[in-house]
Amino acid sequence: MVKTLEWTDAGVRFIDQTRLPTEEVYVTCGNYREVADAIRNMIVRGAPAIGVTAAMGVALGVRESRAKSYAELRAELNEICDTLAATRPTAVNLFWGIQRMRERFEQLSSASITEIKQALIAEAQQMYLADIAACETMGQNGAVLMPSSGGVLTHCNAGALATCGYGTALGVIRAAVEAGKKIHVFADETRPFLQGSRLTAWELNKDGIPTTVISDNMAGAMMQQGKIAAVVVGADRIAANGDVANKIGTYTVAVLAKEHAIPFYVAAPWSTIDLATPDGEHIPIEQRSAREVTHVAGKQVTPDGVGIENPAFDVTPSRYVTAIITERGVAKSPFAASLQNMARQNASELQPAVASR
Amino acid sequence: MVKTLEWTDAGVRFIDQTRLPTEEVYVTCGNYREVADAIRNMIVRGAPAIGVTAAMGVALGVRESRAKSYAELRAELNEICDTLAATRPTAVNLFWGIQRMRERFEQLSSASITEIKQALIAEAQQMYLADIAACETMGQNGAVLMPSSGGVLTHCNAGALATCGYGTALGVIRAAVEAGKKIHVFADETRPFLQGSRLTAWELNKDGIPTTVISDNMAGAMMQQGKIAAVVVGADRIAANGDVANKIGTYTVAVLAKEHAIPFYVAAPWSTIDLATPDGEHIPIEQRSAREVTHVAGKQVTPDGVGIENPAFDVTPSRYVTAIITERGVAKSPFAASLQNMARQNASELQPAVASR
Repeated sequence: MVKTLEWTDAGVRFIDQTRLPTEEVYVTCGNYREVADAIRNMIVRGAPAIGVTAAMGVALGVRESRAKSYAELRAELNEICDTLAATRPTAVNLFWGIQRMRERFEQLSSASITEIKQALIAEAQQMYLADIAACETMGQNGAVLMPSSGGVLTHCNAGALATCGYGTALGVIRAAVEAGKKIHVFADETRPFLQGSRLTAWELNKDGIPTTVISDNMAGAMMQQGKIAAVVVGADRIAANGDVANKIGTYTVAVLAKEHAIPFYVAAPWSTIDLATPDGEHIPIEQRSAREVTHVAGKQVTPDGVGIENPAFDVTPSRYVTAIITERGVAKSPFAASLQNMARQNASELQPAVASR
Repeated sequence: MVKTLEWTDAGVRFIDQTRLPTEEVYVTCGNYREVADAIRNMIVRGAPAIGVTAAMGVALGVRESRAKSYAELRAELNEICDTLAATRPTAVNLFWGIQRMRERFEQLSSASITEIKQALIAEAQQMYLADIAACETMGQNGAVLMPSSGGVLTHCNAGALATCGYGTALGVIRAAVEAGKKIHVFADETRPFLQGSRLTAWELNKDGIPTTVISDNMAGAMMQQGKIAAVVVGADRIAANGDVANKIGTYTVAVLAKEHAIPFYVAAPWSTIDLATPDGEHIPIEQRSAREVTHVAGKQVTPDGVGIENPAFDVTPSRYVTAIITERGVAKSPFAASLQNMARQNASELQPAVASR
């Protein structure tokens, strides 16, 4: 499986997602500022991957520190965390990853600086492994919801490249295929950044899962023609009421799915669920550079002087969502209650729908 | 106003729409085969423009002829018409333009070869002028339907560049703006060929009409945010029951408009209405090259080995259409009856909703 990100002695190593699908190039970020840049510039993207990347960025920043005391190190930690937190506003996993590292740091007040550095690296690596395990459990929980055969539409990339491995939405598809289901994936190309054509098609093709790329505006026609049996997407943040912030265009797909009575599934790790945010209106939506829309592959496709909108995400109200697939189980309407119930489970009680793979 | 196409002594001159918006280059097709290539390669596109282009192609082909008799010329005419008819299957205006030239030819059986050549050139030029006049009347008929202020979404390019001038959907917007309405256009970029960003934004920007380009998948979010008060698009063929074939993605926009209770208007000249085709299922949909999806600006964005869909058009069932704006008036549901009524009008009875500009 592709290594989306990994901790190495030299720093955090990423496959450069801006160069796919034609070039498979890896870059290593040797300090936390480079890690922040990698998030901001979308060398690494996808909410779960961003969360673990941020944790590794914290571990890397602390490892570089020449602080001599816990207090001195905490001041540096604050600076590191603030820098990483300022990269992208929507994916809640970023803040979750940073917060978890802060909490670990707070537990280490009596440890030596060397021990703290080692413990934070270990924590980030544990989060890395837990992310892959969560994807695999999500896959098992979601595979049963997939059709036994037919087209499944996905938007953006919620795959191995959006996580530490296996994927959320694509993890569900992978698990369904592994269970013998005959799924043909329809991948929205996902303008402006083309995560669907560049990333989803690339990783599914490597796995031998049949995939057709469509431009985003073809989704309606494909549904009208009966080619789509289900939709499954990832999420960047899910509010307490089940509203889903995900890649721009997700809401358009959700409306189309409703019109064609096609189930619309969201797959995301528990770290994407933000019970502190009541609903989608309270989720901050990142606006990215106009140039992502006006230029494609470096070539200008829009004349100078016109306005551009480039929200990176939109919000799909929970009434369009058939189910939310997490590693803790599958939430259904009414989502507020369903998510609250899951929140009350503690780790030892977690019961995946199917035993671990 | 931009000259999308024009008859010149050297042949049919086009603005090369594949080079916009960064280069304003004109090409002249000196024979009918070059005209056919210009249609096929989308140097000229847009149903009304294609119809008149085909007529000019016929006139050009006949002008080149060395036939010595009417019978000999008819054989060449058949070859010319077949070549032009084989370029693109969906826009019915292509066949309409060719058929009208055939009918004119049939009226000229007692004329000299020289007279026939002159008469066919005159016929094509008359169709050119009639197309602009139809757009202007459509504009008047549709302007009253536009909001007095607010966002109007359009898809693809149904503008001056899709017609001999002024445009269909953009003609309606132009007439509304000329009538003092404060319209801000939202232009879907319209993958894969980017007619929205490359062409619609270019021509509206030249006219000083405020325009924002969005990627196609943002349309839902813009509607959800209350930014869109109406949708107006063109058409490539309208069946007898009011089903509308138009650029791929139009159906997706229509579903979104319905979900948000936003009126969805179609503007097209009468030559786009095909009463011989009962409904949208009978409209042939052109499949174009996969490369339009896999490559953008010459750069590969999709890995080798995955499937591609590239239907150039989709069909919007008439139940999604609020009204069809033509130069003969505005058709509304039930469309079959409304269009039949308009068909019964003869040219002398035509009553635009507002007096000619």
